[in-house]
Amino acid sequence: MEFEESGIGEECGVFGCVAAGEWPTQLEVAQVLTLGLVALQHRGQESAGIVTSNGASPPTYTSHKGMGLVSTAFPPEALLQLRYGNLGICHTRYSTTGFSELQNCQPFVVDTLHGRIAVAHNGELVNARALRKKVMRHGVGLSTSSDSELITQLLALTPPMEELDTPDWVARIKNLMTETPTSYSLLIMFKDVIYAVRDPYGNRPLSIGRLVPISRLHSAGEEDTEGWVVSSESCSFQSIGAKYYREVLPGEIVQISRFGVKSLSVVPRPEGDLPAFCIFEYVYFARPDSIFEGQMVYTVRQRCGRQLAIEAPTDVDLVSTVPESATPAALGYAQQSGLPYTEVLCKNRYVGRTFIQPNTRLRQLGVAKKFGVLTDNFAGKRVVLIDDSIVRGNTISPIIKLLREAGATEVHIRVASPPIRFPCYMGINIPTKEELIANMPEFKDIAGYIGADSVEYLTVEGLVSAVQEGISSFQKENVSSYKEVGHCTACLTGKYPIELEW
Amino acid sequence: MEFEESGIGEECGVFGCVAAGEWPTQLEVAQVLTLGLVALQHRGQESAGIVTSNGASPPTYTSHKGMGLVSTAFPPEALLQLRYGNLGICHTRYSTTGFSELQNCQPFVVDTLHGRIAVAHNGELVNARALRKKVMRHGVGLSTSSDSELITQLLALTPPMEELDTPDWVARIKNLMTETPTSYSLLIMFKDVIYAVRDPYGNRPLSIGRLVPISRLHSAGEEDTEGWVVSSESCSFQSIGAKYYREVLPGEIVQISRFGVKSLSVVPRPEGDLPAFCIFEYVYFARPDSIFEGQMVYTVRQRCGRQLAIEAPTDVDLVSTVPESATPAALGYAQQSGLPYTEVLCKNRYVGRTFIQPNTRLRQLGVAKKFGVLTDNFAGKRVVLIDDSIVRGNTISPIIKLLREAGATEVHIRVASPPIRFPCYMGINIPTKEELIANMPEFKDIAGYIGADSVEYLTVEGLVSAVQEGISSFQKENVSSYKEVGHCTACLTGKYPIELEW
Amino acid sequence: MEFEESGIGEECGVFGCVAAGEWPTQLEVAQVLTLGLVALQHRGQESAGIVTSNGASPPTYTSHKGMGLVSTAFPPEALLQLRYGNLGICHTRYSTTGFSELQNCQPFVVDTLHGRIAVAHNGELVNARALRKKVMRHGVGLSTSSDSELITQLLALTPPMEELDTPDWVARIKNLMTETPTSYSLLIMFKDVIYAVRDPYGNRPLSIGRLVPISRLHSAGEEDTEGWVVSSESCSFQSIGAKYYREVLPGEIVQISRFGVKSLSVVPRPEGDLPAFCIFEYVYFARPDSIFEGQMVYTVRQRCGRQLAIEAPTDVDLVSTVPESATPAALGYAQQSGLPYTEVLCKNRYVGRTFIQPNTRLRQLGVAKKFGVLTDNFAGKRVVLIDDSIVRGNTISPIIKLLREAGATEVHIRVASPPIRFPCYMGINIPTKEELIANMPEFKDIAGYIGADSVEYLTVEGLVSAVQEGISSFQKENVSSYKEVGHCTACLTGKYPIELEW
Amino acid sequence: MEFEESGIGEECGVFGCVAAGEWPTQLEVAQVLTLGLVALQHRGQESAGIVTSNGASPPTYTSHKGMGLVSTAFPPEALLQLRYGNLGICHTRYSTTGFSELQNCQPFVVDTLHGRIAVAHNGELVNARALRKKVMRHGVGLSTSSDSELITQLLALTPPMEELDTPDWVARIKNLMTETPTSYSLLIMFKDVIYAVRDPYGNRPLSIGRLVPISRLHSAGEEDTEGWVVSSESCSFQSIGAKYYREVLPGEIVQISRFGVKSLSVVPRPEGDLPAFCIFEYVYFARPDSIFEGQMVYTVRQRCGRQLAIEAPTDVDLVSTVPESATPAALGYAQQSGLPYTEVLCKNRYVGRTFIQPNTRLRQLGVAKKFGVLTDNFAGKRVVLIDDSIVRGNTISPIIKLLREAGATEVHIRVASPPIRFPCYMGINIPTKEELIANMPEFKDIAGYIGADSVEYLTVEGLVSAVQEGISSFQKENVSSYKEVGHCTACLTGKYPIELEW
Repeated sequence: MEFEESGIGEECGVFGCVAAGEWPTQLEVAQVLTLGLVALQHRGQESAGIVTSNGASPPTYTSHKGMGLVSTAFPPEALLQLRYGNLGICHTRYSTTGFSELQNCQPFVVDTLHGRIAVAHNGELVNARALRKKVMRHGVGLSTSSDSELITQLLALTPPMEELDTPDWVARIKNLMTETPTSYSLLIMFKDVIYAVRDPYGNRPLSIGRLVPISRLHSAGEEDTEGWVVSSESCSFQSIGAKYYREVLPGEIVQISRFGVKSLSVVPRPEGDLPAFCIFEYVYFARPDSIFEGQMVYTVRQRCGRQLAIEAPTDVDLVSTVPESATPAALGYAQQSGLPYTEVLCKNRYVGRTFIQPNTRLRQLGVAKKFGVLTDNFAGKRVVLIDDSIVRGNTISPIIKLLREAGATEVHIRVASPPIRFPCYMGINIPTKEELIANMPEFKDIAGYIGADSVEYLTVEGLVSAVQEGISSFQKENVSSYKEVGHCTACLTGKYPIELEW
Repeated sequence: MEFEESGIGEECGVFGCVAAGEWPTQLEVAQVLTLGLVALQHRGQESAGIVTSNGASPPTYTSHKGMGLVSTAFPPEALLQLRYGNLGICHTRYSTTGFSELQNCQPFVVDTLHGRIAVAHNGELVNARALRKKVMRHGVGLSTSSDSELITQLLALTPPMEELDTPDWVARIKNLMTETPTSYSLLIMFKDVIYAVRDPYGNRPLSIGRLVPISRLHSAGEEDTEGWVVSSESCSFQSIGAKYYREVLPGEIVQISRFGVKSLSVVPRPEGDLPAFCIFEYVYFARPDSIFEGQMVYTVRQRCGRQLAIEAPTDVDLVSTVPESATPAALGYAQQSGLPYTEVLCKNRYVGRTFIQPNTRLRQLGVAKKFGVLTDNFAGKRVVLIDDSIVRGNTISPIIKLLREAGATEVHIRVASPPIRFPCYMGINIPTKEELIANMPEFKDIAGYIGADSVEYLTVEGLVSAVQEGISSFQKENVSSYKEVGHCTACLTGKYPIELEW
Repeated sequence: MEFEESGIGEECGVFGCVAAGEWPTQLEVAQVLTLGLVALQHRGQESAGIVTSNGASPPTYTSHKGMGLVSTAFPPEALLQLRYGNLGICHTRYSTTGFSELQNCQPFVVDTLHGRIAVAHNGELVNARALRKKVMRHGVGLSTSSDSELITQLLALTPPMEELDTPDWVARIKNLMTETPTSYSLLIMFKDVIYAVRDPYGNRPLSIGRLVPISRLHSAGEEDTEGWVVSSESCSFQSIGAKYYREVLPGEIVQISRFGVKSLSVVPRPEGDLPAFCIFEYVYFARPDSIFEGQMVYTVRQRCGRQLAIEAPTDVDLVSTVPESATPAALGYAQQSGLPYTEVLCKNRYVGRTFIQPNTRLRQLGVAKKFGVLTDNFAGKRVVLIDDSIVRGNTISPIIKLLREAGATEVHIRVASPPIRFPCYMGINIPTKEELIANMPEFKDIAGYIGADSVEYLTVEGLVSAVQEGISSFQKENVSSYKEVGHCTACLTGKYPIELEW
Repeated sequence: MEFEESGIGEECGVFGCVAAGEWPTQLEVAQVLTLGLVALQHRGQESAGIVTSNGASPPTYTSHKGMGLVSTAFPPEALLQLRYGNLGICHTRYSTTGFSELQNCQPFVVDTLHGRIAVAHNGELVNARALRKKVMRHGVGLSTSSDSELITQLLALTPPMEELDTPDWVARIKNLMTETPTSYSLLIMFKDVIYAVRDPYGNRPLSIGRLVPISRLHSAGEEDTEGWVVSSESCSFQSIGAKYYREVLPGEIVQISRFGVKSLSVVPRPEGDLPAFCIFEYVYFARPDSIFEGQMVYTVRQRCGRQLAIEAPTDVDLVSTVPESATPAALGYAQQSGLPYTEVLCKNRYVGRTFIQPNTRLRQLGVAKKFGVLTDNFAGKRVVLIDDSIVRGNTISPIIKLLREAGATEVHIRVASPPIRFPCYMGINIPTKEELIANMPEFKDIAGYIGADSVEYLTVEGLVSAVQEGISSFQKENVSSYKEVGHCTACLTGKYPIELEW
């Protein structure tokens, strides 16, 4: 599935860093934040923001936000401005709204009676509408449509602030978590600490890493710790010289300071509710080298491919993939089926944004102009193409046509996830019901629509078992919030982790 | 006085427009706003913002903000987005803070329980610190350092909002005016109206104009009204085809809707307090074709020049000016003294931003590279140069040197305003005491410092009389808030219009 | 006359600099070139180019070209690249052709058998078409339409180059001057010298200056010489700390090296031909502080105003000007006539490039939106407006309308130059005959067309005498090429300095 | 091998298009050119240029050049300007020279006595120095260092042009080919035709395609021809809706006009000389879906991998690749060896240009930050990594380190091409001898240097046989210039196709 074409999109990535030891630090915190964010760029390309703090009393915060990719949004002069930070949080964002939305860009920073806080958020509050009304009823004006501002105002609002109070942010965070059950992974920076928070259902991911000397990434011990990082995905750790430490647990509030990582509390789910980590992080969103629940995403995708080969075999000559997110599943399918894995397409990296006039013959090319066809590898043969998901079908359809024109005698499609049929209210942008190809009555209708000889999907049970069989027993048995395993499959089944009120 | 060199700066300009008659309007409101803002560009070059409303129930607001001049901040595609507005407000801003401050850019827009409002503000709240604390004590987080956000939150906060209430914004505005006496000229847009507000002291200007057919700018009657505009300065009216209508009075709340202009209330000053319109609007900030208190700014400046010739005559051969803000005063000085008015400098319009390496001989040129010297006009002669104000002396000093090198036998400086000696807390950026050249003990010290044969300033009394003698008797006699005439001369005298608490 | 509106345009400015004394020099040559070029920006705003040489054997040349104003075309990193130059030439260009013409930008640099030369050119070769054909007949391909490339190829072509020759560039330049009589002021850089050349008719200006310590611009002696500069106009000298030295004479080849300035040759005109310096340099193109033929341009313009008052008096209440190129003439008119000089318009510096939708009421504003009207200065009065020239009438017409609407009872136009009626083939862009307002049969037709009560122009005789009476006797008597005085008035009279072949 | 890190670079790609049938054409020629160029972007990313002709008598040429990727260099407004072309040629360029080199950008366009021609060139003239001298001795100045300008001047120069001649470009092209034997693939546009030329050794590639309706790419017959295209690589054909037609042969001059494709001449090589198509086009430069000499590049690479497995087997647990240019070879190695193909790295597409401060710990990351490690796929296992070539070793070295740190017990390197040891004088940028890792005395020194357990390369014989065994017998037997097969292996063997004179 091609990201830009699919219409399905993650909303955000969050990342934080605290330098260990004495401050001012030798650690180039702003650079660590930037590189960490670059490694989360697949989670959002529209805008990016960084806020750093020097951690002093009172602290000096420095922030920079920009439109576009991290490399565009943070020119060298912006990084120079941020360089005195001893800690910081940052955020990258995907959005369907166009033009001029810098003000919606996170992290959101506000002055409160107890000082300045900064908040970065991945997810979507299911009861945002009610919460906005509550805040406004209190006489607060909301200047953006972002949940991040809403969260900061909720933190400021309850319990009421008194000037002489100590700023008990943990109490405020706990209160927030009772007001909104899901979906959020949050980084909250206050002066010299970062609070890393995951909602009680664990719907969005959040992992902690430890910065060590790059030359001893493997052998570094506790005493070599140069800082702590926290990230939507662990894939960002290697590229900044950090070792994977652990996940923030569902419902957990973790404090990260220069003295280390400390679990402050785990807010429980209602009796009987299971965890609900978004299963599409495994299927599509996450980078394959990230680790969730003790297992590498790549491995899960490969397992999905194997399971798919069992559930939906094909009588063909070769297995291939639409480069490149579906490659692990395709390799898994090939291994299980014994069919040879063969490349049939190569990608033109440079296509991107070339301007094409409407109403010309070239418009008909569509996505095809992004792919070169490796004709000799499949001409005269029967092909099964593995895709990780199919949303609207407008990518796969012209590809099938290309392959047929170039000589494939049969083209079958096998999808390494179940059909997407329902909207997500927890932070994922999914096309409308009308656009979702999976809402066609039967698979053969889909095959007809996209021009394939056959189309089959992985079952929900197959996906869930492929995901859950790899969760480490350590994770399942020893950690309270994982006592029972569970995942959110709402977009596939329509069963939402909590009851939705409107 | 050269703006960029002076270090003295106006903070803002505000502008609004409401189309008259049936909506959707034929009037290109976004274009009127943009051109109106361009005509206020001298009041702020750092950033600009526009918010329009279609005026429907509920209204759709569209906004765009950008860094730099209006022409840069509003590319054609931004204007296209704004084109469905039937009314709108906009703002241009000067700021000393650097990099990446788009979020501080006005108008500020917030959602409240009673709907969305937008606020544009010129001025500075003298009690901003206390008001920020008050708002935050209520549990509100403030996301910017701008007074504009503070004002919106205050409007939302008091009186408490109830969902079933009608949104009595006028009561809220009156309440705001009791909480902060000065300094502000405000435009507040809500759905289909703009409230135009001036603080009870009338510290910042605000004028209303009437849009008429451009081909009949002069002869157009009431029935030809195409819309209403409101602006920091009336100089913006001609360039959009509007006729001057009247000033908003000190303390007045005016409602501008498609049905016309309606005065809702005049909030009084404390017993005994005089109006305090900023006298530096006359001296330096405003464009010479603007009208304040019934008189053209150019005329006041010319009168200041005449008064200066009476107070501080010189025995020289010719009168000249540093182009071009001091020209009216120089012509006035020439008329009064009978000395010939002669140009001695011509300006190079293109100098601007050329990059010059530090520590080179060219650095010594300073401001001189902006001016060509018209040697033959003054070689062998004694010159008096009229300037409108001298702040740090770093413009006038190299100019005097240039003239001497080119053959002027004497160079005297006469300043058409009194020495600036005190800080402003009402919205004007003034350099620190150490930088202010006028804090030297005697005028002859200043002359020595800048290399002039003599330096004299207009007296405060001279300035005040030059300003006040032209205020129309209509304005003085018939309008309640002008019963007594008064102007803020705090930066010259240290006497602030209200007692400052810290 | 407003430049952008007039449709009349100078094509170019050229500038060069050679550091004196030992090399590598302490003089920041690239910066001197840039600032010198900025001071010539009024002669061309489309693109700019610099070429520097380190002057070694063989020399290293560095060049940079860019679109737009000098400040845009030369970002700091470009200047850094150029910083090792000990000498250099540069060029700024105006062009009517649009988009993407960087390759036409000068200086033009070519490798020849005798090494690399760089050429910057102001003017237009009257026989360019024939010369292009000649060069191409020799088997040379021409890659641009610029005369500058043509000149470099002609220099390379004749006399034939032999590898063992010494590169006698002076012989080549002389040969070039026999092939093309006019119009050119040229800078030719080869290794460590610049040749400054003016065509035998002296049609385009070229002046030499001497760089001295900025702190002793006046008192510096020969021994303080830091370098030599050569420029289309002397107005650029002050802003780089240079003293005016002398003009390059018509037909003269001057060599500028680190050892000083040396006249190599003066190529004569045909017997009986007069010099033909472009009279419009005085009227309109040049900056008022430039010196031509020993007199300041401002003074000539003032004299034109005086002459105009004699030739075309008016019975009015005040004299004014369209800011700001016509101000010297207006002051001259006022002095001669005894009428008061009064400002009636003020300019909005920021209008520039604001985007306005076509077909809206705001289009009707035209140039009026660039000017504020100082109503109180002229309401109820009769006004004579002095302009320096009127080309198409589309600037003056809406201004007259503005003044009438604002209350002027009469508006008369007096133009301080004769009507433009003929095309220029020597480097000036003039609108077509149909667009030239002066081709109307009578002045009263023009008055009707632009809405004035009357229109009068300066006579050709009046202009010529105003120009020639100020030429210093030194210049006339002692310098061979000035034995007789003469100016090109072709655009006014249709009499071209040489016979045109087609 | 990572392109940016390798220091080895192709210099150019060329592309042309002629609309068939009646003109003005319905075919959007400028768009076809742009998309064709995008598909050649891997051959050069520094700048791009397009020239179109309307084909009339005389023709109107339109050109646009820009720095950066095609998508940056050709904004929509540039494409609009080019839209009236009925034919055109374009060029994309890689260059090691920095800043401001737009003028070196191709195609090069010149006016000659016989009209305007445009030239685009891929390759490097081995005798450029002597040819430049020859041209300059004729009195021509050369304005760039590009071979493209040199070629245009040579075409204009010989035979001598006479005005009345017919412009026999073919004779001129033949003459050029006798003056310079290699290396060039050329597109020469004149009025309404494009001449496509390959040097007698066929050193650079050039293929012809036929534009057909996109909806019938497969079934379209001769009568459906919409135009003709010519391209450095056939990979560009599919993305514009063109079918592969044939290669231009070594030494061939092909004329492409709206009437079709016509072979005009084949200039022979000296007796006994073999063809010398650059073997590195197969190994590294070309896109895998391109076709050379009748075979798909991907297939050759796969065959190299197989051959490598035979020549240099390893006793390991899995075969992998550095994504993604070496993947075909890795799959070939896996197939031949029977070892499982496993992914060990995933690429972060977004790393690119992030600014990193020098002298920080993050600098140590080097290329590693571009790759995520799929730890679970190889921890505890022995790995052989296949690369397509190793130039300086600075990419592979940190990758090996990453794999070891993540748990690989052994890391062996197998390179699917022979060591690069010699410079190329035919258009490929190769690092200096000192930088070339292959100049270490023994493979085990290289292994030590990059940290591998062992390093082996494909032999030259192995490479040549892997390339030549697939050349179609049709190509070998029937086409004169392929009577004998041969490839340039100069960078591997030091044997250049022609004797080099200096």
